[in-house]
This record gives sequence, structure tokens and C-alpha cells, in this order.
Amino acid sequence: MTPYPPAEFTLDPRLQADTHFIASLSLCDVLLMNDSRFPWLILVPRIARATEIVDLDEPLKSTLWREVDQAALQLRALTSCEKLNMGALGNIVRQLHIHVIGRYAADAAWPGPVWGCGSAVPYEDIAAKAIVNNFRSRF
Amino acid sequence: MTPYPPAEFTLDPRLQADTHFIASLSLCDVLLMNDSRFPWLILVPRIARATEIVDLDEPLKSTLWREVDQAALQLRALTSCEKLNMGALGNIVRQLHIHVIGRYAADAAWPGPVWGCGSAVPYEDIAAKAIVNNFRSRF
Repeated sequence: MTPYPPAEFTLDPRLQADTHFIASLSLCDVLLMNDSRFPWLILVPRIARATEIVDLDEPLKSTLWREVDQAALQLRALTSCEKLNMGALGNIVRQLHIHVIGRYAADAAWPGPVWGCGSAVPYEDIAAKAIVNNFRSRF
Repeated sequence: MTPYPPAEFTLDPRLQADTHFIASLSLCDVLLMNDSRFPWLILVPRIARATEIVDLDEPLKSTLWREVDQAALQLRALTSCEKLNMGALGNIVRQLHIHVIGRYAADAAWPGPVWGCGSAVPYEDIAAKAIVNNFRSRF
């Protein structure tokens, strides 16, 4: 499938600052949240000015959910997490992005949501590279 | 479309206690979260023992996302909310359920997530009935 045309799309600067790039799928960029407390992917459809899933055209919605699904399956396979969490909020960063997070009963936010839980603990560079490469080989 | 067979499905007791029933779509029951701080719908696919979206068969996934989409559009139309939030967590209640919430910059949890934010403020009975009826006429 041809990558969806990026057109005027540019990644939100906060998402850029908080993540490591993993891969470009046909519609979404897949990012690793730079918070070693949680295995946490963010999918960003490369659509300029998109903020709400409901406002996407049907074929884009289908592709988005297929890619979210793919990301969630790979995340679970790589991390053996006990529960998947998924969310689209956008209250702070308006650019449309979907969170996919692997959760454990022993993690720092359990059973609450990861959003708004304390401060991120960035990965060591070598760990981030290893994780990014692991994911990259699966997309 | 024939309603999806409920089979052994029964609604989780906590979801039952925390919500008002609105409607049964072809796959999901649509519930109103009994928290007047936020316009908040919960969609529960009537599938016994389902806990993760990724584990549903493809046709069920498509139907689920279509119904979530429909609920989000009706919620936005009825409430003129400023932002939609959507999430599937299930850390506390394992039965698969999807949250669709209308958010305002002036609401009690903004810009954080609604989950884990203080205590629910139940609707007055008359208000709950009116809201349920409003939604019911749209599904």
C-alpha cells in the first residue's frame, strides 16, 4: 500500500519531543513514548489538522483501526503485558493521536490510567534503541 | 441487523451499578455513566468473556468501531462538547467496554483524563431520565 500522502502534515512538537520514532505504516507514524515506566506506543495518522477520529473519512477510519490493532498485537507480543489500554484524548496535544499501552498489575499507575500519572522516566539511549529496533522489525 | 446473540453474556455488576441503560445496538449495549460531571457513554459488546478488542474477530471489530463512532457522533451532537475522549482500559472492570466522553476546557478533570478523577456525582433521577431519553431517540 502506498504511504498516505503526508501533504502539509508535520508532527506536533510535543509529540516529537516526548517520543522515539519507530516506523511509518500506510497511514500512521508509530512512536515509542519516552517513558520507561510503561510500554507505550502512539500512533499518529499523517493527516494535517486531524483532531477527532469521528471526523475522518470511512476508509481512513478503517485503516486507522487496523493499524492500531496491529500495534496493539505487536506490543502485547513483545511485552507480554497483562492488559492493553487504548485511548484517544487530545486534551493537551490536539493533533490526532492514539495511545496503545501495555499494562501490568505492578506498574506505576495501576489500576489507574497512565495519563497524568507522575513524571515520565526517559529510557536510557541504549534501551530506547533496542526497543525501537525490536518494534521496527515487526512493522 | 439482528442483535448479536447475547449467549452467556451478562453485564458486569459494577458497570450495571454505575450506569443507566440507554439502548442495545446490534453488538453493543450503550450505557450512560452515572456521573453528571461529564457526558459519558460506555459501550459494552454483548460477548461473554471478551476483555481485549484485539481478540475479537474482524467482523466484530468493525461493528464495534462503527458503533463507537455512532455513539461519539451522537454524544457530540447532543452536548456540543469541545473534545471527544475515547478509551478502552479495563484495568478494574475486565469485561470489555469502551468509554466515549465529551470534554470541556472547564470540566472537573480538564485537561487530564476522567478516569480516576475524584468521585462521581450521580445525576438527579429526572435529569438521568431526560438524558437517557434524548440519547435513546437518536439510536
